Amino acid sequence: MVNWKKSLKAKTPEEGYRLAIALAQESIKQIQPNEKIREKIRPKYSTNANTVIAASKVIATHFQTVAAANDYWLYHKHGHRSSVRLNM
Amino acid sequence: MVNWKKSLKAKTPEEGYRLAIALAQESIKQIQPNEKIREKIRPKYSTNANTVIAASKVIATHFQTVAAANDYWLYHKHGHRSSVRLNM
Amino acid sequence: MVNWKKSLKAKTPEEGYRLAIALAQESIKQIQPNEKIREKIRPKYSTNANTVIAASKVIATHFQTVAAANDYWLYHKHGHRSSVRLNM
Amino acid sequence: MVNWKKSLKAKTPEEGYRLAIALAQESIKQIQPNEKIREKIRPKYSTNANTVIAASKVIATHFQTVAAANDYWLYHKHGHRSSVRLNM
Amino acid sequence: MVNWKKSLKAKTPEEGYRLAIALAQESIKQIQPNEKIREKIRPKYSTNANTVIAASKVIATHFQTVAAANDYWLYHKHGHRSSVRLNM
Amino acid sequence: MVNWKKSLKAKTPEEGYRLAIALAQESIKQIQPNEKIREKIRPKYSTNANTVIAASKVIATHFQTVAAANDYWLYHKHGHRSSVRLNM
Repeated sequence: MVNWKKSLKAKTPEEGYRLAIALAQESIKQIQPNEKIREKIRPKYSTNANTVIAASKVIATHFQTVAAANDYWLYHKHGHRSSVRLNM
Repeated sequence: MVNWKKSLKAKTPEEGYRLAIALAQESIKQIQPNEKIREKIRPKYSTNANTVIAASKVIATHFQTVAAANDYWLYHKHGHRSSVRLNM
Repeated sequence: MVNWKKSLKAKTPEEGYRLAIALAQESIKQIQPNEKIREKIRPKYSTNANTVIAASKVIATHFQTVAAANDYWLYHKHGHRSSVRLNM
Repeated sequence: MVNWKKSLKAKTPEEGYRLAIALAQESIKQIQPNEKIREKIRPKYSTNANTVIAASKVIATHFQTVAAANDYWLYHKHGHRSSVRLNM
Repeated sequence: MVNWKKSLKAKTPEEGYRLAIALAQESIKQIQPNEKIREKIRPKYSTNANTVIAASKVIATHFQTVAAANDYWLYHKHGHRSSVRLNM
Repeated sequence: MVNWKKSLKAKTPEEGYRLAIALAQESIKQIQPNEKIREKIRPKYSTNANTVIAASKVIATHFQTVAAANDYWLYHKHGHRSSVRLNM
C-alpha cells in the first residue's frame, strides 16, 4: 500500500498523514502476509475502541517521522525556511 | 475535522493542542469511516479510564509533532528566536 | 487547568513538570468534558497500578515536549547556552 | 536477522523499513533465544489484532531511528541536503 | 523524590538514569498523593511482568529526555563536543 | 548489567543494541531488586507474545537514545560526519 517512492517527501501535511497511515498498514501486512487472516482480524481494528486507539498511536508515530522528513512543512517552495534561524 | 491547511502552523500552544486533538480524531475517522460505528464506540473513549488515557497518549504524541513544527512557540513575531543560539 | 500562556516556557524543570501534568489533564478534560463522569473515573487513575503507569507515560511524553521547548533548561539567564556548541 | 553492518544506513525508505522490522525481530530473539518457543508464540503475533498493532508500534519506533540515521533520505547522492538550511 | 535542582544535568549516564527513575516516580506521587494507597499498589509494580515493563517504558522515555538534556554525555569537561560538527 | 561507563558510546549499532537491552534490563532490576521475584516473573517475559512485544518496545526506545548518543554511527573514525551539513 505504501508507494515506496525514493523519499518520504509529502507536499502537504494531509499527504504526509496519508503516508503515515500507509506506513502503519505496511507493517501489518509484513507481520501477517496472509490477506485472508488480515481481513478476518480487520473488524477488530475498526470496532473496538482500544484497538482503534492503539492503531492511531502507530499512525501518530509514523506521522512524527514523516513530518520530520518534511521539515514540518516549514519551507517555502524555494527550499528556504520561512523563519530565519541565524543572523550572522 | 482537521482543517488541512497547508502547514502545521499554530499561533499558540493552545491552538496547537487543538490541532493535536484533531489529528488524533482524524486517524479514528480513517480507521473507522462509518460514522454510526464511531458513535457507538465513542462512549468507551470517554468513560473508561484506560481508554481515555490511551487516547490522551495519542494526543500527546501529535502535540509533540505540532510543537516541533512551531519551534515550540519560541520565536517572536518577527521570526527570530528569543534566545540566541550562536554568537559569532 | 493548563494556563494557556503564550508559550510553553517554564523557568525550572519543576515548573515544566507541572505543566506536563496539566497538559495531560487537559486532554482528559477534552475527551470527557462532563465533570461528573471525570470524577467517577478518577479513582481508577489513582488506585490501579497499570492505569497510574499509563497516565505517567502521558506525562513523560508531555515533559519531553516541555523540556525541548525550554532547551532542557541549559541556558543561563542571559539566553546563552552554558556549553558552547561551536567555536569558530 | 539483522545484518549488523557497520551502520544503520539504508539506501531507500523501503530498505530502511525492512531494517526496522529486522531490529524489532532482533529483540524478540534476544528476549526469547529458544527458537521453538518463539515459533509457538509467533501465531499470536500475526492473528491477534492488538498484538499485531503492538508489534507494528515497535517497528514504527525503530523506523523513526533508522529514518533519523539516514537523515530521512533528504540528501542527494553527493551528500548534500536538497534544501539549503543556511545561506550565509 | 526528585531533587528539583535547577537543571536536568547529570554528570554520568548512571546519574541520569537515576534521575529518570525519580522523574517516573514523581508522576506516580502526583497522581496518587496518598502514600498509603501508593504502598498498597506498589507490589503490583514489582511482581507483575506487564506492569514492570510498562513502568520501565516510562523510565525509558524520561531517560531519553535526560540524555538529550545532557547532550548524551558527549562533551568533555571543558564543554566542547568530543566530535567536531563543523569545520569552517 | 549495564556497564556504566562514562558515556553511552557504542562502536557499532550492534554494540548499541546490546546497550539498549542492558538499559531495559536495568530498570527491571531497579523496580524489582529482589532477584528471586525477578526470576519468577521472567518466564512471562519470554513466553507471552504481548509481554515480549512490550519489552521489545522498551528496548526500541532505549536504542533510539543510544543511536542518538552515537550520532547514528554516521561519523568516520576521525570524528567527522560522512555527509557535510554545511558548506560555507
